[in-house]
This record gives sequence, C-alpha cells and structure tokens, in this order.
Amino acid sequence: MRILVVNPNTTASMTATIADSAMRVANAGTEILAVTSSMGPVSIEGYYDEVFAVPGLLIEIAKGEKAGADAAIIACFDDTGLDAARALANIPVVGICEAALATTAFIAQRFTIVTTMERSRLPLEHLVHRYGMSGRCKVRAADIPVLSLEDPNSNARDRLRSEIATALRDDKAEAIVLGCAGMADLTAELRREFGVPVVDGVAAAVKQAEALVTLGLSTAKRGAYASPVRKPYKGLLEDFEPGKLIAK
Amino acid sequence: MRILVVNPNTTASMTATIADSAMRVANAGTEILAVTSSMGPVSIEGYYDEVFAVPGLLIEIAKGEKAGADAAIIACFDDTGLDAARALANIPVVGICEAALATTAFIAQRFTIVTTMERSRLPLEHLVHRYGMSGRCKVRAADIPVLSLEDPNSNARDRLRSEIATALRDDKAEAIVLGCAGMADLTAELRREFGVPVVDGVAAAVKQAEALVTLGLSTAKRGAYASPVRKPYKGLLEDFEPGKLIAK
Amino acid sequence: MRILVVNPNTTASMTATIADSAMRVANAGTEILAVTSSMGPVSIEGYYDEVFAVPGLLIEIAKGEKAGADAAIIACFDDTGLDAARALANIPVVGICEAALATTAFIAQRFTIVTTMERSRLPLEHLVHRYGMSGRCKVRAADIPVLSLEDPNSNARDRLRSEIATALRDDKAEAIVLGCAGMADLTAELRREFGVPVVDGVAAAVKQAEALVTLGLSTAKRGAYASPVRKPYKGLLEDFEPGKLIAK
Amino acid sequence: MRILVVNPNTTASMTATIADSAMRVANAGTEILAVTSSMGPVSIEGYYDEVFAVPGLLIEIAKGEKAGADAAIIACFDDTGLDAARALANIPVVGICEAALATTAFIAQRFTIVTTMERSRLPLEHLVHRYGMSGRCKVRAADIPVLSLEDPNSNARDRLRSEIATALRDDKAEAIVLGCAGMADLTAELRREFGVPVVDGVAAAVKQAEALVTLGLSTAKRGAYASPVRKPYKGLLEDFEPGKLIAK
Amino acid sequence: MRILVVNPNTTASMTATIADSAMRVANAGTEILAVTSSMGPVSIEGYYDEVFAVPGLLIEIAKGEKAGADAAIIACFDDTGLDAARALANIPVVGICEAALATTAFIAQRFTIVTTMERSRLPLEHLVHRYGMSGRCKVRAADIPVLSLEDPNSNARDRLRSEIATALRDDKAEAIVLGCAGMADLTAELRREFGVPVVDGVAAAVKQAEALVTLGLSTAKRGAYASPVRKPYKGLLEDFEPGKLIAK
Amino acid sequence: MRILVVNPNTTASMTATIADSAMRVANAGTEILAVTSSMGPVSIEGYYDEVFAVPGLLIEIAKGEKAGADAAIIACFDDTGLDAARALANIPVVGICEAALATTAFIAQRFTIVTTMERSRLPLEHLVHRYGMSGRCKVRAADIPVLSLEDPNSNARDRLRSEIATALRDDKAEAIVLGCAGMADLTAELRREFGVPVVDGVAAAVKQAEALVTLGLSTAKRGAYASPVRKPYKGLLEDFEPGKLIAK
Repeated sequence: MRILVVNPNTTASMTATIADSAMRVANAGTEILAVTSSMGPVSIEGYYDEVFAVPGLLIEIAKGEKAGADAAIIACFDDTGLDAARALANIPVVGICEAALATTAFIAQRFTIVTTMERSRLPLEHLVHRYGMSGRCKVRAADIPVLSLEDPNSNARDRLRSEIATALRDDKAEAIVLGCAGMADLTAELRREFGVPVVDGVAAAVKQAEALVTLGLSTAKRGAYASPVRKPYKGLLEDFEPGKLIAK
Repeated sequence: MRILVVNPNTTASMTATIADSAMRVANAGTEILAVTSSMGPVSIEGYYDEVFAVPGLLIEIAKGEKAGADAAIIACFDDTGLDAARALANIPVVGICEAALATTAFIAQRFTIVTTMERSRLPLEHLVHRYGMSGRCKVRAADIPVLSLEDPNSNARDRLRSEIATALRDDKAEAIVLGCAGMADLTAELRREFGVPVVDGVAAAVKQAEALVTLGLSTAKRGAYASPVRKPYKGLLEDFEPGKLIAK
Repeated sequence: MRILVVNPNTTASMTATIADSAMRVANAGTEILAVTSSMGPVSIEGYYDEVFAVPGLLIEIAKGEKAGADAAIIACFDDTGLDAARALANIPVVGICEAALATTAFIAQRFTIVTTMERSRLPLEHLVHRYGMSGRCKVRAADIPVLSLEDPNSNARDRLRSEIATALRDDKAEAIVLGCAGMADLTAELRREFGVPVVDGVAAAVKQAEALVTLGLSTAKRGAYASPVRKPYKGLLEDFEPGKLIAK
Repeated sequence: MRILVVNPNTTASMTATIADSAMRVANAGTEILAVTSSMGPVSIEGYYDEVFAVPGLLIEIAKGEKAGADAAIIACFDDTGLDAARALANIPVVGICEAALATTAFIAQRFTIVTTMERSRLPLEHLVHRYGMSGRCKVRAADIPVLSLEDPNSNARDRLRSEIATALRDDKAEAIVLGCAGMADLTAELRREFGVPVVDGVAAAVKQAEALVTLGLSTAKRGAYASPVRKPYKGLLEDFEPGKLIAK
Repeated sequence: MRILVVNPNTTASMTATIADSAMRVANAGTEILAVTSSMGPVSIEGYYDEVFAVPGLLIEIAKGEKAGADAAIIACFDDTGLDAARALANIPVVGICEAALATTAFIAQRFTIVTTMERSRLPLEHLVHRYGMSGRCKVRAADIPVLSLEDPNSNARDRLRSEIATALRDDKAEAIVLGCAGMADLTAELRREFGVPVVDGVAAAVKQAEALVTLGLSTAKRGAYASPVRKPYKGLLEDFEPGKLIAK
Repeated sequence: MRILVVNPNTTASMTATIADSAMRVANAGTEILAVTSSMGPVSIEGYYDEVFAVPGLLIEIAKGEKAGADAAIIACFDDTGLDAARALANIPVVGICEAALATTAFIAQRFTIVTTMERSRLPLEHLVHRYGMSGRCKVRAADIPVLSLEDPNSNARDRLRSEIATALRDDKAEAIVLGCAGMADLTAELRREFGVPVVDGVAAAVKQAEALVTLGLSTAKRGAYASPVRKPYKGLLEDFEPGKLIAK
C-alpha cells in the first residue's frame, strides 16, 4: 500500500518532520510518499495563504494518484483544499484535522486543539463545527508563527506548553490535539510531560488512510464529490491546465 | 462611490448579465465597475472549479482596491474566495449568497434557494449553515449547467421554473432565492409569474456594499481577517507573486 | 423614497437622537419620517414594557403606510413588535437589532452586543439565536437604564466604555454592536476610541430599508406574515379598533 | 389552592370549554378560576392578534394575583404574553404550549402538534425551538379557523382527524399534542379513536401549576423576569395605567 | 393513586431521605411506595455504576407495576435506566433529572445543576443536551462523593454551598437544581440561604408522576418504547430471567 | 497486536459472522479474539435488551484486558455499554456504530444507516446526534428482526435491499452504513449491487482499534472515563462482584 502525504506548504524541512511522524506509525507494508508542494507559500497561516497553496496541492495529488498511490493525506491542519481534492481524486483523501478529531473522539469526551496563530483559530473552529465536534472540542492559539516551531532559538515550544496547561485547567480538556503539522515531533514528549493523550494529526491521518484502503472504501462520487467537469480555462491557468489534472 | 463587481468565472457574457443587474439597483451616485476574472474556468460548478477561480478573483480585488473601489462584490453564488478576499482587502467585500440570504431574512421566515447543479447543492447547504439559516432555508438544484442559462435552445429556464414550483408547494417557501449569478436577468419575470418575492444575489449585494460604505464600515482586522503576512512563494506562484497583492 | 422610523417608546428626545442617526446615512433622495409613539412607556426595558409599546407602534406603522411610506423601521433594539408589524404592513419592516446583526456579519466573524440593562440581556440573546448568530455574537449589559444615556450627569457612558473594553478583551470581539437606539450618537466617537468597527442599528436599518425598497422586495404574505383577519374586538380595544389598522 | 386560568381571547364560550378541561383534572383541593379577558380579539390567530390580547391578559393576571391566586395559566397555545406575565407576577405562570410539550416529553420521543391555521404554524415552530424540542416535535396545521371548532356545522373536526392521521403515518409521531385550547374537549374521543396518547395543554398546565405551588416554586426574579420598573406611560395607555398593575 | 419511587442504589438510608422528600409534596390521596433496589452498588457515580444498578431497578419497577403502582420514579439524578424502564413498563416512568429540568424551565431562563462528582458532570451534560436545555442549563460538580452527603463529619455540604455561590455569580444562574437525590433534604435550607429557587428532582418527579396519572397518560408504545420482545437469555441472567419481567 | 471483539449478544453464530468480517480486514500482525458474551439476550433490539447485555459484555472486556488484549471492540451497532466499558478498561474501546460513522465521514457528506427494527431507529438517531452527524446522516429501519438475517428462508435481505434503494433515492445518500453487526457478510455483495460505498461497522472498528493501538492512544482518564471507584454491591450482583472487574 502506498500513501501519498502532501505538505501543501513549500517548506521542505517541515515535510521531513511530517514524513518522520507518518513513517513511525505506518504499517509494515505501507510505503509513505511524502512530497512538498512545488508551488505556494512557505507556510499556511489563515485564509489567504490557503488559496495559493491549493493548486500546488492538487497537482501533487493528481500526480500521486497517477503514480499509483492508494490514498492521499493533506498535511496541513486547516484541511486546506480537502473538498476539491476529494472531487478530483478517485483515491480516498484524508485531512489531518479531521483525522485527529475523529481519532480523539474515540478516547475522550472533551478535548482542545492548540494551534499556532490567532488567525488560524477561527478557521479551525469552523472545521470543528463542520466535523460535528463543537460541543466537545475547543480551539486555542499559542500565538506562534508556524515556522518558529522549527527555530531552536524561538520560545514557540514554551508558549505551546503554556497553552496546553491552560487548556487542561480551564477547558477541563481530557486530551490535547496538536493543531499544526509542524508540531508532530513533539507528540511523545508532550504526552510524557502532561500525562494525557496528545494527538498528532499526521499520524492519525496515516492510520485513517490505511484503514480506508484496507476497507476498500473511497470517496462517494454521486453527490458533492462528483468528478469535476472538464471545461476551458483562461489566463495564467490556461498554461497551468487544471483540466488536465482530471482523470478521464 | 465605486463598487467593484467581480465575476470570478471567465465568461464575459455572464459578466454583462451581472453588470446589468447591478446597475439597475445601484444608487444614482454609485459607479459599478464590473470585471471578468482573466484567469480560471468558464463557469464555477463545485469545489474543484472554485480553487482555480480564486487567484484570478483576488487579483481583480487587489487591482480594484488600488484603483479606488470603495467595496467589492464576489458575483458567484458559492461566495467563492470570500474569506481570503476579506483578509486581503481593506475595503468591505460582500458575497452574493450571503447578501441574498441576509436580505431575504428581512421579508420571509422560510425560503428556498434554487441553484443549478446537484454538485453545488451541498456547498450551498454548507453556506446556509454557516450563515445561520439552516432552520429556515432549503436548497434545491434544478440540474442545469451554469452556462445553459445563456443558451436560448436549452430547457434550463423551464427546469428552473419547475423547481421553483416544487419549492413553493413542498417546502412551503415564502420566497425564492436565485442560486446563480447567471439567473439575475430572470428576477422580474419570475416574480410576476409566481407572485412571491424572488431575490437575486447580485442586486442584493450591491445594496449591502453601498450600505457598508455609507455606514463607514469595513472588515474587522483583529481576528480571522487580519491582513495576510507577506512571505516567500515558490513555483509558478513565484512569478505570480501573491505577496505583491497585499497592501503595505 | 420615504422611510418611516418609529421610536416605540414615548420619549421625544430619544426620537431626535434616532432621527439624527438615520438622516446622516440616508441616501440623497430618501426622506426620513421619524415619529415618536404617542402611546406607551417612556423607555423599553424588558418584556413588560414591550407589551405596552406595541399597540402605539402598530398605529404609527399603519398611519405611516397610509401616508405613503415605502418602508418602516422599528427603532428599539428589542425589535419590539416586529412580527406583528410585518403581518400588518404591506411595506417592508426592519428591526434595528436584526439590521445591526445582518450588517455586522459582513465585516466580522465574532462580535458582541453591548446593551443597557441586565433584564434586556436575555431577550437579546433570544434574538441573536433567532437570527442564527448564536455561535458568533455575545451579549453584554452595561447595567445602565436607557434614559440615563441622555443624562449628562450619569456615568452611563463610562460604564458602556468599560463593557466594550471587556468585550474586546474577553470575548475577542472583532466588532461592537450598540444594543440600544439611544446610543446611536456615540458611534463615531467609540469607533475612534476603540479602533474597531462599531455598529449602530438605526443607521444599519435605514440602509436595509432603502435596499429592500430599491430591490422591490416586501414581506412575503403566504406564510407566518399573512395579513391579519379582521375580527371583532372587545373592551378598551373596541374603541381603539385594531381591526381598522388592517388595510383592506 | 387557587389556580387562575385566563382565556386571553374574548370568546366566553371558549372559556367554558377551557374551564371544563381544567376542572376535570384539578386536584380535590384546587379551585379553578377561569376568566375571559375583557379586552382584545375574539380569537388569536397569528402575531397581530397576540399583540392586542396581551394587555387584557396582564390585567387579569394582576387582578387574579391580587385576589389570591396561587398560580396562573395562559390558555392560548401560542403562550401569548408569557414572558411579560412572568415579569409582572410574583406567582408562577404557565403557558399551555410549554406545559403540553413538557408533559408529552415524559411519555414519547417523537410527537406532533396539530394546530388550527397555517399562520400559527411558524409561531408554534418557534416555541418548539425555544422549548428545546425541535429535534423531536413537528407542527402541522389543519387549516381550520379557531372559532370553527365551536361550529357544529363546520368540517373542522374532520380536518383535525385527517391531519392527526397524517402525523401518525408520515411523522411517525408516537403521541399527538392538540395545538389549540379550543380542542380540549376532544381529547378523550381522539385518544380512543387513534389509540395513542393525545395531550391537551390546558389540562397539562393545570397539573404543572399545581406542581409549582406545592413545590413552593415561583418565577426567579434575578434575571430576565425581574419585576418591571414603574415608569410614566403616555397616550391611551396613560388612562389604562399599566404601571398600576405592577405590585409594589 | 400509588407512586413507586425506586432508589436504584442499594443504600437504604438514602431511600429514607428520598421518601421523606417525596411524601412532603405528594397529594393527600397519593401513596408513596419508596423502595431500595436489592441489587447493585451502594451509590451511583458515573457510567460503570449505572450498569449494575439497572437490572435491580427494572426488577423493582416490574414488581411495583404488578403490585398496582400507577407510575414509577427513578430516584437517581443520572436518570439511570430510564429508557429501558419505559420500554418495560406500561405505567409512566419519570426520571428525577428530567423532572427537575422540566419544572425549573417554568420559572427560570438560565439555571445550573450542582452535582456531586466530576465523573457525573459529563453524563449530566449529556442529559441536559438530550432534554433540550443546553442553551440554558449549566452543570457543576462540587467534588463530593454521594455518600459523604450523609456523613455529618464531611465538609460535603460546605462544598455544595460554595459551588452554588459560584453558579449564581459566574453563570448568572436564576435558579439552582440539586443534582443528586441525596441532597433532597437540603432544599428548604438552601432556598432560605440563597434566596433563589432551589429545585429537588425527587419532589419534582412526584408531581410529574401524579400529573401523568391524573391526565390518563402513559408511555407511547408505537416507537422507541415498544414493549420488549420475550427472547432466550443465557448465563447468569438465565436464572435471573429478564424475560419474565415483561408483562404479557 | 491483539484485538478483542465482543459480540454482546449470546448468539454464537453471529459471532462467527463478526469474526469473519474482522479477520478479513485485520493487519497481518493483528490477532482477532472474537468472543460471545456468556450472559444476556440472544439478540439486542432496543433499550431493554441492552441492559441485560452490558454486564456480560463488561466481564468479557475485563477478561480480555487481563489476558493481554490491546484494544476492545463492542460489536453491536447500538454501541451498547460503550461508556461503561471505557470507564472500566485501560485499553481503548471502540463501538461499531461510532467507527462506521467516523469512517464514512471521510468519504461522503450525506449517508444513511439502514438498521433492523423500528425500535432501534431512535436509539441510533440518538447516537448519530451524539457523534455530531445529525446534519449528514439519516437512519432507516428495514423492519427485520436481527436473527432473521441468519435465516435463509426469511425475506430479510430483500427488505434490506429495498430500504437501501429508498435511501439512495429519497435521502440522496452518497453511501450506506449497515446498521447491524449481523449484516457484515453482505457488505461486498451490496457494494457491487448498488455501486456506492457500503460500510460495515465491524470492519471499520477493527481498523480504528488497530489505529489507536499503533498511535499509542488510550481512553483519557481525567474526566467522564475516570476509573470506577470500588464499592460494595448487594444482591445477586454481590456474587457477580462487579467491583472485581475493576483493575487495581
């Protein structure tokens, strides 16, 4: 089984963190294909960055499917481009936020997502609502830029710890969800430190993707995720040819 | 006052319909600047098309703001790219779906959106939910491609009529919302024919945009719509330079 | 175009504040007809006062419609008597709370209403819920009687400022809605002071009423707002003749 | 114990039906004081009629409380004036819709209200939502004027039966709630005929009112139901003196 | 009329407290049959204890119905086994949590349940949601074991008082619901002390049970509460013979 | 890795069906321990049967955990006893309904559960609501007893097919969830026949259980699922000793 993991931002070092997290939990027979989008912003912080990350993401998903991937994972906690990717692909596509929430729901009744920037908090609250978890999941921002997580000199990890402590005390959170793919390498450490379940969306998504493949399930194509209709495109995107991504 | 109206698909004839609807209801002192996106698909039907329409839309919004527009309207009923446009622009941005729903809520307790394709129905149900109207607004699809509305030989308008009749009978709809910018020119005719309020989102959005400008209100910038951070982009988008769209 | 603005309490000085706010934002061709109800309490604070304000309000709306008004505004933030007014009138009727919320929803994802008395807080929470905004709008009371807003010796405005500051900090409000018609004259000052959008319902309602008139839309009459049936009345109300308010 | 039952419409024959239903279920020691409002419309059908029924209703409640009633019931299925009555009175006040729903919730998971006119359907749906029963209770209108229930020559009762049959089949209703005080005398007959629980709000409210009195519970006065503030009134209502209804 | 009150835990001294509360409010003609379950844990604190309390509870309900009880009350605030009891019995069955919430809803818009242990808080929040009260009722735990309420040397009652004070201040609760049958004897004292309505579920349930009996209403049997099908049982339960509890 | 799969009814032939479904999808290194509860009803149809199935279920879960199982699955679509099992066990516990819904949510926006008996429909609607899927998942009953699925002479499978066809047409379901563990063997056949994703909860639960084990996640123990307190039990259950199930 081959699972494509797309980092939809263009920072390769973050892809390495993501790949490492994915490979740690993959089944023996699962091949993880971790790719960095070749097009778009270096990090995704809020609505504007998402827009310019999605075309590159879709290119990678189309390429991956053609190359034989059995499932795809979008490794950004905003589940950037998830609906479009599902419409495009015939293989199942999993977002790391939805995977993290679905997984945590099996082990806790109340939990909190701790994410990076305040500007990502409301988009995540919107996802929480969409995934039916509003009554049980809160969202907090530690006020740390995404890339600061990779900077050994920043205080990003201290701020993250501090926000987790607040969530445990004030939200009575029973478990913590890490709200950024770039936090994946901290999972084990934070579990030990806080003594509660800490969930990383990348790892969770790998297991969900493997599950769907083994179960023989893929995206339903008779409703909102019907395959896109090929149609003419104009302007810059004419060269870019989005219509060609659509499998015949 | 200058109101920018962006047709985010690349079909100029549809922009003409939109501009006509906008100009009919604009105040005497309002200048309508209707533009066709120069980049993207010829029609927007579902999640996939949306992705490739948004970059072109944002370019037009940034250009329009720089050229002195006081507000911007996104003239696609999916409210395509609305959140990103609000983050980008300092002028207010209005979607035609949200404008139509907000307007209809002043005159009816129960109403129905009639849109084009089944694949757009669930995205619109999602918007209805987001705008707090789930309890009072249903969505129906007449199963007609967007561009067929412009084809005098298609039966698109008959199917639309038939679905409106069903909404009035089965949903007990008190008013009808036209779920596609390309239906704007039918508003008056359908009102006469069915004897109920029929709401066109383009016209509704013009009035909401004028209202915001006159009231001196623009997008709040302290939460989810904080201005995007300028950051490096890679790939095709490096030339495209999304960072340059962000006003300093 | 003529817009009737009814102050449903019987304090003429508050009508002056309301009229001033309405006229500032009205279009060049719009005539504002601001009237004080001739019947009822001097201020509306909670459920009991509402009851005795509505008959006088309906009289003014019926008189205004007969005199040629194109739309009517109910200038009390409880949207007092709104449903009955819509059933009675054939012109559109707009409440200042619903107008303020609909308007603010175009520029902010999270916002807070700051109102006068605690006893008005729950009725407003009920409106917020009805208008589909529970997830994004909080309500706070500054604990100030309505008429104290007009008293230069009261500390009402200081308390209002203090509650706004709390809303910005604790609710992470992106915008503030002024929860009483009597606060309309403070809008500009508070915007400057707090640097966030501050929305006055009176001004917002004027723009919504103008919009409905220009769009040719009025209350749907096939459901809950069907015109009332004329029927016999007894007691004091026999002389008052509510049946005569109903247009034939 | 003395329970005041106010018929807020001015049709004495309907009060007789209500009184009969109330007395059948009252405890041995309970005195039922059934009164007809002396002021307002002969029947309450929709929002407009409600407005003119409430002042007369509040007069009766104030009089009843002064005369020693231990609790009050508002015997109109719209729960007309309930919030204002609770603010005014120091004795508990019960609406027949809320009593019927609360009672039915103990014996069925899914149920349907069958009411009179279509124009009352949406106000009742609003109450159902307010009372937290949206997920389990539907509302249907049999399209019969309220007073036709008293007319032996009308087909009102046949239409009611037909709508109940539809509710049992299409809604999978487990129980039926009669959505008008004027249907109270049909309860026993309809139970026999349909073999399911049929709930009359008047009878249900008597038991709830008795319960509150025996339990020593009355309306909480520290929030939305704080006693109204006495204040000046103008116009017709000056003579009517609503301020005098408020107990010192 | 005979009302069976089952204490589903096996602590007879708590049954005495419950019986006392029930008898204080029962009608003159009502006989209270208070029984202690003969099987199960000495107190019910959370999901695990509930499981082992239900079989004993159902035995008592079947015995009580056979012995002529007209209605049954489950006197544990978790409404332990309520759905199964309703399916089994032909007499109406009332839970003390649902009775307390339904009763309080008639006298307050916002209220708070104060219960014993944190592990019972989420099950009660779940009930609050199920009964449609999420928007108006909060749940707090005083962190006191159930049986400590009976221990004169524990500080349980002080902690309870302290949590009530917090609810009144922070939740703006208008009334307090006592979240454990073992608190019933404190009702009068706490009312005097805090000056707000304090509701005991046992007493509330007695009045609801009497109401249902007088109204001639019992559990609807055409949906979720259809009588169980008699079927073979294996293991320990074969001797216990649950099938025999089902009335033919 | 060892996954315990408990059939909480006492019909061994159904356990065989369940075990077969589980083993088909288990990873190479996963050992499936399928056990039949030794205590309780032969099938679980509604609330009453659930009660008598749970003690036997908990015994098997405690035994399985002691014997080294890494996770446990409750193989009844009502998720019978799930909360109590989670409180009891230190290994993760997965219900087949929640696993099926969580899995289907990755591949479809709208879907329908088709279950056996009408009396199970409302309990399943309750689960759908609890799992946050009310807006996207409907429940239908094919009106077939659980054990008839095993009877080659019954028309159970035809009725199931017919109900699936109705769900696809009337609910616009994009995928079907089989609402009974006894339907697991039909999955592949129904997929071929209807050409849409068909989800079996047993298989889905195996993948979720494996995922949790690999991810190193187990039930959070600081909230509703805190380990039960050992306490005295009386009656039949004294011998049964539920306290002994609790790990020290």
